[in-house]
This record gives sequence, structure tokens and C-alpha cells, in this order.
Amino acid sequence: MLIVHKYGGTSVGSLERIKNVANRVAKAKRDGNSLVVVVSAMSGETNKLVDFAKYFSPNPSKREMDMLLSSGEMVTASLLAIALSEMGIDAIAMSGGQAGIITDGVHTYARIKTIDTGAMRREIDRGRVVVVAGFQGVNQNGEVTTLGRGGSDLSAVAIAGAIGADACEIYSDVDGIYTTDPRVEPRAKKMSYISYDEMLELASLGAKVLQNRSVELAKKLNVKIIAKSSFSEAEGTVIGEERDGMETLLVSGIALDRNQARVSLKDVSDRPGIASEIFTKLADENINVDMIIQNASSNGLTTLGFTVPESELPKAKEIIDNFDHDIGGKDFDSNICKVSIVGVGMKSHSGVAATAFTAMAKENINIEMISTSEIKVSMVIEQKYAELAVRTLHSVYELDK
Amino acid sequence: MLIVHKYGGTSVGSLERIKNVANRVAKAKRDGNSLVVVVSAMSGETNKLVDFAKYFSPNPSKREMDMLLSSGEMVTASLLAIALSEMGIDAIAMSGGQAGIITDGVHTYARIKTIDTGAMRREIDRGRVVVVAGFQGVNQNGEVTTLGRGGSDLSAVAIAGAIGADACEIYSDVDGIYTTDPRVEPRAKKMSYISYDEMLELASLGAKVLQNRSVELAKKLNVKIIAKSSFSEAEGTVIGEERDGMETLLVSGIALDRNQARVSLKDVSDRPGIASEIFTKLADENINVDMIIQNASSNGLTTLGFTVPESELPKAKEIIDNFDHDIGGKDFDSNICKVSIVGVGMKSHSGVAATAFTAMAKENINIEMISTSEIKVSMVIEQKYAELAVRTLHSVYELDK
Repeated sequence: MLIVHKYGGTSVGSLERIKNVANRVAKAKRDGNSLVVVVSAMSGETNKLVDFAKYFSPNPSKREMDMLLSSGEMVTASLLAIALSEMGIDAIAMSGGQAGIITDGVHTYARIKTIDTGAMRREIDRGRVVVVAGFQGVNQNGEVTTLGRGGSDLSAVAIAGAIGADACEIYSDVDGIYTTDPRVEPRAKKMSYISYDEMLELASLGAKVLQNRSVELAKKLNVKIIAKSSFSEAEGTVIGEERDGMETLLVSGIALDRNQARVSLKDVSDRPGIASEIFTKLADENINVDMIIQNASSNGLTTLGFTVPESELPKAKEIIDNFDHDIGGKDFDSNICKVSIVGVGMKSHSGVAATAFTAMAKENINIEMISTSEIKVSMVIEQKYAELAVRTLHSVYELDK
Repeated sequence: MLIVHKYGGTSVGSLERIKNVANRVAKAKRDGNSLVVVVSAMSGETNKLVDFAKYFSPNPSKREMDMLLSSGEMVTASLLAIALSEMGIDAIAMSGGQAGIITDGVHTYARIKTIDTGAMRREIDRGRVVVVAGFQGVNQNGEVTTLGRGGSDLSAVAIAGAIGADACEIYSDVDGIYTTDPRVEPRAKKMSYISYDEMLELASLGAKVLQNRSVELAKKLNVKIIAKSSFSEAEGTVIGEERDGMETLLVSGIALDRNQARVSLKDVSDRPGIASEIFTKLADENINVDMIIQNASSNGLTTLGFTVPESELPKAKEIIDNFDHDIGGKDFDSNICKVSIVGVGMKSHSGVAATAFTAMAKENINIEMISTSEIKVSMVIEQKYAELAVRTLHSVYELDK
């Protein structure tokens, strides 16, 4: 099989751990597979380099930041190739550019445009393990670009798609995707399979194993991802296309996001352009608005509610406070959390949301806001009920079975 | 003026020092100069990366070593460009490859073949300071290569030659070239000028400010080097072509090399091929032979003497001991040193060497070996006389005047 491995910063966080990764790669190679291995910078390195740059400038040039930060992955890639060679596994290290990863010109948050797989294929055909520095590419002028946080996942998925790999194994310090956060609900179970769409919802709701950009790309390129731990032999979770038989599972997982704050605007004039005006001002300040709910108007006045990251509430409050027209009352609450249930089964089954609402009511948990998508129901509740809500929902959908 | 600055590892050894370098570069730019700045890795970084690699392999792949080590200079270049931008000096960082430095394919000890100055020129013409990661280039396959120890000096001189810079200022922690090592002779004086050839002799004799490869290249490309300190405002030493009026200076400097050992072979058969056989065996073991002296034969037997680095004496001894024919006697002595006087004035003045021999005799210092070139006289003496010999010669040629 042709497989892409990707090892994150924690998995290559020390020389011992890089050796451990080399052992894993060597085993997979000896088992007869062809391999491309994508690596992150050793954990802590990227932050160290960012701190270095901040010493000189609060707003360092993005082009130079890319050149600076890309060095971390180059170091890991070189070291892993050296470790593999020492074990008798023929290996070659490549920068993103050498691996043919061409991006647009947006420094620090570039998008991969194409991958010229010629160099990688040549080395694979020679029986070599290709070790690629993740998180980076080059733009059309040959300048180094980086792909933003989680960019190494993106490199791995893009490469897997471009070379037609059978799977893209993403290694981290957790051994897969769980039905919910095991620190909140010890009876959480590791899923053996989850669809791209479910993973997308879970990731955007705070499950941190995989970033959305790479899941989106995997879905688009139809790359099978396997999320695994580099510290154990446990089977991971496969992230792939929706499968027959999935309908039987109503709900796949419960996500909890504690870092949200609620903004409620009352008696807002119900005329075109008001919402646009408010959210444009928030966007101008780079405030990430998540849930947005507007109730149908009755007397020409409406209620507008939305959530923002807790850390951005002060900035949001300032903007709203300076908004001097068309708003009757306002209410800010950072003492909330968002609990979400996710499952492709919801598409074809009614009553999934109702089950959730009933369960919450039984526990006397008041739901302040509700937002739904095709495969997700999110509820904003008081923060103190967070764990109770997660455990209740985990149980009512029988995720521990 | 168009000037190349080069800052070594100590000069960029901390964030504070990089800021200091930025201040120097900013001043030179504000004084109206166009600038290319070549930087080394922060001191200690290269050794750290070498140690990392050695953790995995005693003989790491050279290609991967180049990729690994080149990252250190990239970090410094990026940081310096960021620091300059923050000071309002428009700056751009470039890897060796981006700066157009094309080398041959010999990893870890590549030679610069050409420099495509297009990218640098474009940025200079836009008024930018170009900050280049030293010590590195790319070969024709786009693979990163490094230039060996002292390679950043070589990058700087090669760039200065390629862009036709008015001068190449090489900054380190010493403020120029001295008539001899000031730790041995406190009355040593900094030279304001020294010719390439004298510098080559001094460097090969142990003066460590500049490496021979870069001086050779400077001579070939006629690049004026100025050796300066990045920690002071002191004027440095200019290294350039031989100048009129130089003849008045008989001797420019005294060099001392304590790390040599002497090998003397007695009663060697004086037939063709013996010397070749011995030195080929030594070369095969990568033993650097320095002085070689063979006395004229008398009775069909000759005396062959040479010096090797002290650290390589055991290996040399083993080779000689296994050399079982045509050698009558052998003598090894690591308790020696080599004192040399260097000066282009010797070319046109007789008696320079005689003055040295007389001065040594007066101090009862026995000269064990003598070797001369057009502008150099080297003497091997007992190590305990090292300081006395240097001070005596320094005084007899009036270098303290």
C-alpha cells in the first residue's frame, strides 16, 4: 500500500520521540508499504521562533515569518531521514517546495494550489521513504509560504490526495476520535469510524484532533484519514465517506465548547441592513461570530442573539456599546457553554433534537439558544451545567453502549 | 556605495546582538549605502543541530545534514530582516538559493559555481536591504548545499564579487588583523592594511579571523575585505591587493601555531617514489601534512621531515610504524611549535630570514626545521620557546613601532 504518515509536534517533541517515530515508519516500510511521512516542528519550536520574532516587532513581516517558521519542520524532516537511514531504511528529506507543494501567495495562511508529485514519485519508485517538512510550500515566486495552524495535517492530506495514497494516517498524542471528551464523560468511547461531515462538525465544535481545513480537503479529495496515537499500538479512528448502515447511528458524538460568550440584543429595529451593519463591524475587528439566531419579528422589533469567543467578548461589547441606534436592550453573558450533538443519522430521522431537549428539561437545564444544521444540534446553556449536559446526552443517545 | 556586510555567529549570538547588528546595518543604510547583509547561524545553533544528528547516526547523510544545518542561517536572516523592518528599514530575507547562489553537488563542502544576482539586484534597486542566509546555496537539482566551516565568509565574498560591491565588511568579535596574537605579545598592533597573500599565509598559520577559502576568493574576484568588530566602532583591517609602498614593510606579522607535531625520518632510501608512497598513505587517512623538508642526499640516504596536526600524530605514527622498508630511523615530537614571519617585503629584500635566524640564535632557541615561501619564513622550534620567539621576532622587525 501507498500510505502517508503525519506526525505532529508532540509526536516528534524530543530526539527520543523522533527515534520512536522512525521505528514506526521503519516497521510500516518493512511491512511492504510505500511511504511519505509528513512532520511538524518539534513541539515548542514554533512558539520559540514566534517569540524570537516578537522580540523585534509586534507585527513582523509575514513573508519573513514564513521563512523563519518553516525552518522548524525542516529540522524535524532532516533528523527523521537521518534516523531512518541509520536503521537501514533508505530515506530522503524534502522541504515543502522540494516536495512540489505550490501555494498561493498569502503568507502565514497560504492555500495549496497544486502539488507537483514528480520528485516524490521518483523517490518512492526508488524504494525510498520520502520525509516532507509539513506546514509549508512555496509560492510561484519560489518564496516559502506556510499554511497556518494545523498546516501539517493539510500538507499530509493534500499529498495523500495528489499521490493517490491508500490512507493518510495522522499521528498525535490521542488515539482517535471519541464520542465525547473523556475528561468530561469517562464512559466516552473511541469511534472506529466517523464521516467527514460529522468530523467537520465535531472539529468546529472543539474536538481538537484534526483541523477543519484538512478534513474539508480530505472530503474533497476523498482521502481516507486514520487518526492514531504515536505512543500506542491502539487502532485509531477512520474518517471517511458516509457509509451504508450509518443511519442506524442517530448521534455519533457530543461536543462541548466552554469558550463561548453570549450576546443578546433586544428590541432591535426589524429593518433590512441592521444585522449586516452589526456583523460587519464585528468582522472588521476580526471577531469570530459563531451561532447567530434571530427571532421572527412581531411588533417591528426583533431579538438578535449570537455567540463570540469568550476572549473577544470585551471587544464585542465595546462595539455594541458604541452602536447607538436601533437597539433597545443588550445583555452579555460569558458564563455559558455550548453543547452539541452531531450525527449523520439526524438527516433521515426526526425527533433527534426533541430527545435532546427532553433530556435537558428532565435535568432542569434551561436552553438559552438553539441552532441546528443537517447533522448537528447546538445548545447554549449555563456553564455550570456543562458536564451534566454532556453526560446526560451521552447516555440518552446510548453512546456508551 | 554598494557594500556587503557579513556577521558571524558570535555577532548574532543572541536576540540583543541581532538587534545591535540591525542598528549597525540601519546606520549604514541611512548613510546612503546599498546593502547586502550575510549572516551566520546564532552561535551554538549549528553545533546543537550537529549534536541532534549525531544522536541518530555517527555518519548522518550529508544531503540531510545540509538541509538540517542550513536552517540555522535562515532563522538569523529572517529575524534580522524583521528587526530592520521594525526600524523602518525596508528589508527582505533570502535563503542562499533565493539569493541565486548555485553550487556544485558536494554536500557539506560545496563550491559556489555561479551567483545569479537578478533577485538581489531587483531588491537593492527597490531600496531594500537584502539579508542573505550565509553558508548555503543550492545545487542544480535545487537541493540545499552548505559550504563547509567558515562558509558564510565565502558567501559574503562571492556575493560582493558578483554584485560588484565596493567592499565586503566581515564582522566578528575581533576588530581586525594584528601583527601577532595579542595574548602572546601585548604590544601587537592592529594593521590598517594587509595584502591578500599575506593574509593567506597568516590564516594558514593560525590567525583565525578569516578562512583561506574566502581570502583566496576575494583575491581572485578582487573584493576588498574589511575585517571589523561588531562590538566596537574601531576601524578594522583592510585586506586587498598589494600596494605601492608596501615594500618598506619587510614583515607584516608573526604567526604562531602550537598544534603541530614533527615527524623526522632518517636514512630514507633516496630513490624515486618513496616520498610519494609515504605521503599517499598519509593522504589516504586524511592527515594534513604541512611543512615538508627533504635534505639533499649524500650517501644514497636522505632525511625527510614534515609536520602534521598534533591531533593526527598517533594516526601518522601508526602509518609510519607500519611502513617497513626504506626507512632507517624515525623520530616523533609533539612538543614543538611553528613560528612564522610573513611579509610581502621579503620578495624584494634579502636578509629577512637571516635576521630571524640571528635573533633566534641570540636567545639560544634551536631551529629544528625551516621552510620558506616567497613571503613567509616558518621555523619549527621547541614549544617552550613559543612566546619568547614570537616576542623576539615581533621586536626585531619593529612591528610594535
